[in-house]
Amino acid sequence: MSPAPAVAALDWGTTRLRAWLLDGAGKVLAERRGDDGLITAREKGFAKVLEGHLAALGAPQTLPVIICGMAGSRQGWIEAPYVTVPAPIGAILRGAARVEGSSRDIRIVPGLAQRLADAPDVMRGEETQLAGAGLPAKGRHLVCMPGTHSKWVAVGDGAVEGFGTWPTGELYSVLSAHSILKHSLGEHPAPVAADSPFFAQWCQRALGEGGDITSKLFAIRAAGLLQHLQADDAAACLSGLLIGGEIASARRRYGASEAPVALIASGALATLYGAALDLAGLAFRTVDADEAVRAGLVEAARENGMIGDAQ
Amino acid sequence: MSPAPAVAALDWGTTRLRAWLLDGAGKVLAERRGDDGLITAREKGFAKVLEGHLAALGAPQTLPVIICGMAGSRQGWIEAPYVTVPAPIGAILRGAARVEGSSRDIRIVPGLAQRLADAPDVMRGEETQLAGAGLPAKGRHLVCMPGTHSKWVAVGDGAVEGFGTWPTGELYSVLSAHSILKHSLGEHPAPVAADSPFFAQWCQRALGEGGDITSKLFAIRAAGLLQHLQADDAAACLSGLLIGGEIASARRRYGASEAPVALIASGALATLYGAALDLAGLAFRTVDADEAVRAGLVEAARENGMIGDAQ
Repeated sequence: MSPAPAVAALDWGTTRLRAWLLDGAGKVLAERRGDDGLITAREKGFAKVLEGHLAALGAPQTLPVIICGMAGSRQGWIEAPYVTVPAPIGAILRGAARVEGSSRDIRIVPGLAQRLADAPDVMRGEETQLAGAGLPAKGRHLVCMPGTHSKWVAVGDGAVEGFGTWPTGELYSVLSAHSILKHSLGEHPAPVAADSPFFAQWCQRALGEGGDITSKLFAIRAAGLLQHLQADDAAACLSGLLIGGEIASARRRYGASEAPVALIASGALATLYGAALDLAGLAFRTVDADEAVRAGLVEAARENGMIGDAQ
Repeated sequence: MSPAPAVAALDWGTTRLRAWLLDGAGKVLAERRGDDGLITAREKGFAKVLEGHLAALGAPQTLPVIICGMAGSRQGWIEAPYVTVPAPIGAILRGAARVEGSSRDIRIVPGLAQRLADAPDVMRGEETQLAGAGLPAKGRHLVCMPGTHSKWVAVGDGAVEGFGTWPTGELYSVLSAHSILKHSLGEHPAPVAADSPFFAQWCQRALGEGGDITSKLFAIRAAGLLQHLQADDAAACLSGLLIGGEIASARRRYGASEAPVALIASGALATLYGAALDLAGLAFRTVDADEAVRAGLVEAARENGMIGDAQ
C-alpha cells in the first residue's frame, strides 16, 4: 500500500503547471505536468483545471493544496497580494491567500514587491524556490535564480533584504530572433555548451565591463564579418556576454557575499551559470530548481498549518 | 539659367536612397528621395535605379557620381573594401572604389573596419558623415552619430583612431515590440519628448551605472505594476535608459574629450541626444546629419579629383 500524501503542491505559471503529491517530509509520491498555465486556466476555470490534475494524481477529496506562481497574480485565480520587502521568509510564506468556495484547503503563496522609488521590482514564484533553497537561518546570502527573468536576492538572517531582475533569457531570445544578430546566429542555433571557448571569452569580456553589454552586442555581428565567426559560436558569444553581464551587474549591486552564492537552477542553465560564476571567481553551490520549489511549497504548507511539523 | 551641377551625390542605404545634384561648393541644386535602397536595387539593377534618379533630377550624361552607404557593401553594387582604422579621413575618402562599365565616373566611398581581436567593428556610410562634420584638422575629437546602430568615433589630428557601435535604436524597437516591455509601452507609444521628466530621470539612472542597462529594464515593467507608470511615460523611461546607457558606456570607453562632442544628428533624435549629453555634463555641438553627409560626399569627390578644389 502506497503512503498517504500530506499535501498537493503546484507550481502554476503563465504557460505551464507542475503538480506533485508529497508526503509530510516533502517526498514525491506522484507528479504531473501540464500546459494549462494561467492563460489556459483563465478560459477553462482554475478550479476545474486543478481538480482534473488532482483526480489524475489520485489525490483524496480532502487533501490540502498549496500553490505558488502566477496563479496568484491579479490575472490569476485569486490575487495573493505582494508582500513588501524587506520581509522574513517565514512571514512571506504565512501570507498565503486562501481560495474560498472549495471544500479543500487551497492556498496561494504571495509574490514579493520591492517598493523602492528608483528600483521597483516584483517576483512571483521565485520566493518559493528561495524558501526551499536550504539557506542557513543566520548570515548574509546571495541567491541567483537564472531564467527568462533572472532574479538575484540578498538574504540576511532569514529575511529578504532586496532583489533585482535581469531579463537575460528574454534578451537572448529577443535579440537572436529579432535583432541584426539573427543573421549572425542563424535560424536554429545549437544549444550553447558551457565549455565553449567563445562562451568563456565573451563572458570574461562582460565581467570586465561591470554589466555594460550594449557596447559589445554589435561586435558579435562584426566578428562574423571580420573574423569569420560561425553561427553556433556566435550563439555562445551572445550567451556568454549576457550571462557575464548579469553576474557583473549583480555583483556590482550586491557586493561579494562571504557565503557561496546559492544558484537555484537545473539542467543546461545550471551548467552555464556555474561556468560563468567560476569565471567571475564567485564560489557557489547549486540547488536543483525543482527540488527547491517543492521544498518551498512544503515549507509554505507547514507555515500555514496545512500539514504537521517535520518529523 | 540654373547653375550647372558639379557632381551627383548619393547616400545609398539598405532600404532607402537620397540623391542630390550639388555645385562645386556643395550647394544643393536638386534633391530626390527613394525607397529603392540596396534591397530593391539588387533586384532592379543598381545602374538602372541610379540612371532613373539622375534622369529625374535632370543630371547631364557626363556628370560624375559619388556614393556612400551600403551600396558599397559585399551585397551592394560593387564592394568598396573596408579601410582598416586607424586611418586619416582624407585617405579613407581617397579609397573610393570605381564602378566599371559606365560612361560616367561613378565611385563609392569605402566603409571602415576596426580589426581589434576584442572589439571588432564596422561602419559604412557614417565615415562620410564624419568627413563632412567640419572637425578641426588638429586635436582629439569625439563624434556621436545616433541611430539604429549609433556610432561613436575617436578622431585625433584628422585621423580615425577607433570607433564603437551601440545598437540603441534597434534595442528600443526590438524591446518595445517583442519583450515584456510591450505591455508597459502599449502598441503605439507616442514619440518621446526630450523634456519628459521620465526621460531625464531614467537617463540619469543609466548615466550613474556606467552603461549597465539590463539591471533596469524590468524595473520599467515593475514601475507600471507598483507605481502606476503610464504607457507614454514608460516609452520615455526606456528611451532615457538606453540613450543614457549609451553615453555612459561610450564615455567610459573613450574618456572625456576636451573639445565638445560633435553630435551628428537631425530632428527629434538630435534633441533627445542633446538633452542626454546635457544631463551627462558633456559639452557638444550639433551638426545636421543631412548636411554632414552631403559635405562628406563633396569632400570625397574632391579628394578623388572628380571636381575641382573649393573656391
